[in-house]
Amino acid sequence: MTAMNTQWRLAARPVGLPKPSDWEYVEEPAPEPSDGQFTVQLEYLSLDPAMRGWMNEGRSYVPPVGIGEVMRAGGIGRIVDSRHADYGVGERVFGVFGVQRFAISDGAGVMRVDTTLAPAPVQLGVLGMTGLTAYFGLLDIGRPEPGQTVVVSGAAGAVGSVAGQIARIKGCRAVGIAGGPEKCEWLTQELGFDAAIDYKRGDLRAQLRECAPDGVDVYFDNVGGEILDEVLRRLARGARVVICGAISQYNAEQPPKGPANYMQLLVMRASMTGFLVFDFAKRYPEGVAQLAKWLQSGELRSREDVVSDGLDKFPEVFLMLFRGENTGKLILQLTEDGP
Amino acid sequence: MTAMNTQWRLAARPVGLPKPSDWEYVEEPAPEPSDGQFTVQLEYLSLDPAMRGWMNEGRSYVPPVGIGEVMRAGGIGRIVDSRHADYGVGERVFGVFGVQRFAISDGAGVMRVDTTLAPAPVQLGVLGMTGLTAYFGLLDIGRPEPGQTVVVSGAAGAVGSVAGQIARIKGCRAVGIAGGPEKCEWLTQELGFDAAIDYKRGDLRAQLRECAPDGVDVYFDNVGGEILDEVLRRLARGARVVICGAISQYNAEQPPKGPANYMQLLVMRASMTGFLVFDFAKRYPEGVAQLAKWLQSGELRSREDVVSDGLDKFPEVFLMLFRGENTGKLILQLTEDGP
Repeated sequence: MTAMNTQWRLAARPVGLPKPSDWEYVEEPAPEPSDGQFTVQLEYLSLDPAMRGWMNEGRSYVPPVGIGEVMRAGGIGRIVDSRHADYGVGERVFGVFGVQRFAISDGAGVMRVDTTLAPAPVQLGVLGMTGLTAYFGLLDIGRPEPGQTVVVSGAAGAVGSVAGQIARIKGCRAVGIAGGPEKCEWLTQELGFDAAIDYKRGDLRAQLRECAPDGVDVYFDNVGGEILDEVLRRLARGARVVICGAISQYNAEQPPKGPANYMQLLVMRASMTGFLVFDFAKRYPEGVAQLAKWLQSGELRSREDVVSDGLDKFPEVFLMLFRGENTGKLILQLTEDGP
Repeated sequence: MTAMNTQWRLAARPVGLPKPSDWEYVEEPAPEPSDGQFTVQLEYLSLDPAMRGWMNEGRSYVPPVGIGEVMRAGGIGRIVDSRHADYGVGERVFGVFGVQRFAISDGAGVMRVDTTLAPAPVQLGVLGMTGLTAYFGLLDIGRPEPGQTVVVSGAAGAVGSVAGQIARIKGCRAVGIAGGPEKCEWLTQELGFDAAIDYKRGDLRAQLRECAPDGVDVYFDNVGGEILDEVLRRLARGARVVICGAISQYNAEQPPKGPANYMQLLVMRASMTGFLVFDFAKRYPEGVAQLAKWLQSGELRSREDVVSDGLDKFPEVFLMLFRGENTGKLILQLTEDGP
């Protein structure tokens, strides 16, 4: 192989939204696999809000990306060279291969991707970590019961759009919170949410009162900040708040604002619980099977926002997540030929 | 009866710490019971941080005390007049009789008090709502396991001192957070806490690291504010945070500060759950029986801070709670003869 690899490495710990100077673009000859390794040519990168957290110093559920290291990201690619007994050239695989064109892997944490089941972008979305996060977070942590009201923030995002649909499938009243009329219309018209709240329209309190007249039994939170605070005011007795993310706070330059109304947990005998999808790894097959079944029956819709600008534009495309510019799963396509 | 009743009524909704002008002192002839009612002469009033919340306007787990109404409080007294078939003169009873000398009751929510089991102050403390709050909050919501680290804030207060002792009885490492060396010494020397943290000494973070080297498995929170925020930084994986109270915020004139580090719930796959003892009413007999057994065996110690200044001084004595001036259960004694 004489191909060139290109990479985005972390150059500095961002303060606020990542700037161009926080990244280093590196071009170098593509690496060769050693014994027991293979080379993946990346086709699709999964762009996720959680990546912003990995760029920060400090204790978290995974170590931070080091300065000078290739930025961490999940992706799907094709094996183009192999000295690994179990993986052959031409196979499609998912793994945390990083923001680069070619990655070397020994197979650790790698999963085969069957694109006869669904196209690669769907496998990064509804049938990937995104769908599994919604599935286990909503069902195992949120424990919604038929007839209950489930409110999802970041509802037009990758995880939120799946969580709300699962709530609807389970017989709940699904209420989504999103920014702007187009997203809200998509939620109610296309995804079957019972109601949508446009937080950009203002008066979140009145909108919540109208859309969740009996209170909120399950709140699946992707955003944190003021929206979390308002929903806490509207909890029903025994409510479960699922902490999946806090995108409104990821680029905050001030220490994050805590939920001032957290004492509603006492008033309403409610709980707030954080989770990570990785803890459900043993049950991924169950989750994927169920999600695939819903997808096939048409009960669950998948939407990927695939940006085909290629690797060069990664820093800009990544910011779409924090500007609310994506609808559904944001994916960066690296190759032109597609799945 | 020709005795005079004296009452403290709520005159205004306090801003910050209640001021003298927020109360109205009323003297009027003691009421006479109608058919199906009895009159209680109050002997001991339970003074609790939660009473401050009842003085505020707005949605909570009980309606606020109305302006002009007798301040709500639990208490123990003796029946001095009765036209009720089930309650006779001379019986000792507990009920939410209010901050007054004589109360009329139809028996709703009233419990008989057996002072051969323990003196009346203990029945308002360890064997009353206080002990039951610690019992159900720690065991049912916190679910501590032997060997785990249980941290209790407000540990020298009425509920905290019992919660920490139950943690110790259950084989946990009990760590108390309290204000000042005397309280801390009381926790470790008298109550058998494994360690105590004096938050007034400063550097709470370092003290927590030292006292909970393996992280905090259960945090029983009575105070909220900065202490809650620091403990969240130190949660162990799968930790349970029990929200029992937030005394540091009850007199805040600004909107309360939310726990800025709540995303540690996600990092540590932890939960934060609020509860109210009233929801366990059916299991009170179980709780009282167990607490009495521990008390009798000497495993559990009771301490009441009985102030015998009488009803006149109620507004001042009530403030002791928020100034950290009581150790153990704060009780106002109204009669001189005692139990």
